Amino acid sequence: MLRIPYSELLETLQRILLKVGLDRPRAALCGQLFAETSRDGVYSHGLNRFPLFISMIRSGFVDVHAQAERVSTSGALERWDGKSGPGNLNAYQCMDQVIALSRLHGLGCVALANTNHWMRGGTYGWQAAEAGVIGICWTNTSPNLPPWGTSEPRLGNNPLVIAVPRKQGHVVLDMAMSQFSYGALASYRMSGELLPVEGGFNSEGMLTRFPAAIESSKRPLPIGYWKGSGLALLLDLVAATLSRGCATYQIDAAAERESRLSQVFIAIDPSFAGQEYFPAEVADQVIANLQLPFQSADEHVRYPGERVLRTREENMRQGVPVDPTIWRQVQEMV
Amino acid sequence: MLRIPYSELLETLQRILLKVGLDRPRAALCGQLFAETSRDGVYSHGLNRFPLFISMIRSGFVDVHAQAERVSTSGALERWDGKSGPGNLNAYQCMDQVIALSRLHGLGCVALANTNHWMRGGTYGWQAAEAGVIGICWTNTSPNLPPWGTSEPRLGNNPLVIAVPRKQGHVVLDMAMSQFSYGALASYRMSGELLPVEGGFNSEGMLTRFPAAIESSKRPLPIGYWKGSGLALLLDLVAATLSRGCATYQIDAAAERESRLSQVFIAIDPSFAGQEYFPAEVADQVIANLQLPFQSADEHVRYPGERVLRTREENMRQGVPVDPTIWRQVQEMV
Repeated sequence: MLRIPYSELLETLQRILLKVGLDRPRAALCGQLFAETSRDGVYSHGLNRFPLFISMIRSGFVDVHAQAERVSTSGALERWDGKSGPGNLNAYQCMDQVIALSRLHGLGCVALANTNHWMRGGTYGWQAAEAGVIGICWTNTSPNLPPWGTSEPRLGNNPLVIAVPRKQGHVVLDMAMSQFSYGALASYRMSGELLPVEGGFNSEGMLTRFPAAIESSKRPLPIGYWKGSGLALLLDLVAATLSRGCATYQIDAAAERESRLSQVFIAIDPSFAGQEYFPAEVADQVIANLQLPFQSADEHVRYPGERVLRTREENMRQGVPVDPTIWRQVQEMV
Repeated sequence: MLRIPYSELLETLQRILLKVGLDRPRAALCGQLFAETSRDGVYSHGLNRFPLFISMIRSGFVDVHAQAERVSTSGALERWDGKSGPGNLNAYQCMDQVIALSRLHGLGCVALANTNHWMRGGTYGWQAAEAGVIGICWTNTSPNLPPWGTSEPRLGNNPLVIAVPRKQGHVVLDMAMSQFSYGALASYRMSGELLPVEGGFNSEGMLTRFPAAIESSKRPLPIGYWKGSGLALLLDLVAATLSRGCATYQIDAAAERESRLSQVFIAIDPSFAGQEYFPAEVADQVIANLQLPFQSADEHVRYPGERVLRTREENMRQGVPVDPTIWRQVQEMV
């Protein structure tokens, strides 16, 4: 496996983003968000997705000059138009805005329409937690998940992020409503592994642990069967209703483009009502209380976000693992 | 099956609540919330749970005279103390409050500590939707769900409710983080049915569809395995952090008492920014688009909340089904 220094990854991505037309501060932030995603071990939405992002810029699906704009406001609730700008910059800006709203009002919500794929959803959870607030956000997606009981993808797998700040390591959940995201299916397939549990139906409608069979049938399993199907529906409804943007059924399922998405960002300031408060203690005790004998002796109960910190530290020290083919492809874009 | 008129059920419950000490308006509302829950087909949390509720009043776990009080406020975010009052009255009051906050600020959030079991969570989703706003709420519970990979219940199954208003029938999701709630396990057991999918582990650690085996092992399966386990953890952390009340690990697992719970209520007004708006259209189209050939020919894709309306109509017309033993037991309390 090839590892490259984080700084080299970061500078390479930033130079390419400048070249395709982002202005300097936006190229810097956009490249940083991509590089941090690989640094944190979410390779599918970091470097590995960068070439698709560049091709979406070149084909006009992503407008590098577009900046999200506030359309309306009602105190703690705002509606924004992403104007088809870069999805990670739009999402970062909206989370920044709800953090500011939460300082003023206790909590804030921004509903964002017309945006592009936000890449790693967890990014905005970490962003909120770093600011000391609780962050909740989700996105809809193109149709990629059949409603429970059917075989045609009409729902999105609509990733949901919830983050709680903690001095010893933020707790950041980032999960799609399918048992395995398409990125996870691809990773299992490429490493030749079976899924640890059934992850969807094959084209014959049988449950399977073969990742490629699910990629080809486009029938991943919603978490909890009917429950994840229902939750995916509600996340889509709330996002489309509040943003007045597209619901999943209006989003082009073609390719992996994922444009015209709708997203919701919420931040809640736990130190509200003028009292100094950092929720470290309760979170520490809750997590300490989860430590139990684990099914395999060399593992333990991990809280969401725990593994990220370990991977981040390792990748900063040893270099960020990259797929040599993709890295070469990206280097040629500079 | 015995069916009784809704009005008879309602009046019986209200009379008993007066007798155990609730004042007139609170007895009226509390009885109504119980009766509506049975009317809507959620028998486990309506009449069937009423005797336990009365016994919790008699044993002092529920204080009929306690009224929830606001502890602090920060504009759109408030912290309330439930003072061990009746859980459904506390929850109803907090949802009412966030609906009011959402009219003022676009959205509102109340975190409630020291409350009791809220009975049917969906109640507060319907309440928000009836008011024309989006409702999101959840509760923690006593430890009843093992963290993924372990065998001891340390998480709660922490039901989550999301509701979107719609003229043709509100969309109301009400789901626990376990594949089957304990109420659902009991229903399957009493009807002698196997679960439709594996719902947990038996005492030997094997996945099973036998409801009684899971009731006895106390090892229900989280939805989506590690995903539902993570989501349950985050819901608990946010509720305990914001309310400064108990986290699941601090809640007495004994019996089914479920006191000292922490809950979060959020309402978002989709007509914010002074524009008339009812999200009927987008919700209608999203739901219409889900209609697909279903796995069994006599069924169709149901949206969350759809079955409730049918059951409600049937039960108002034909009477509310009651368990004869429980109904007799309740009648004797009058």
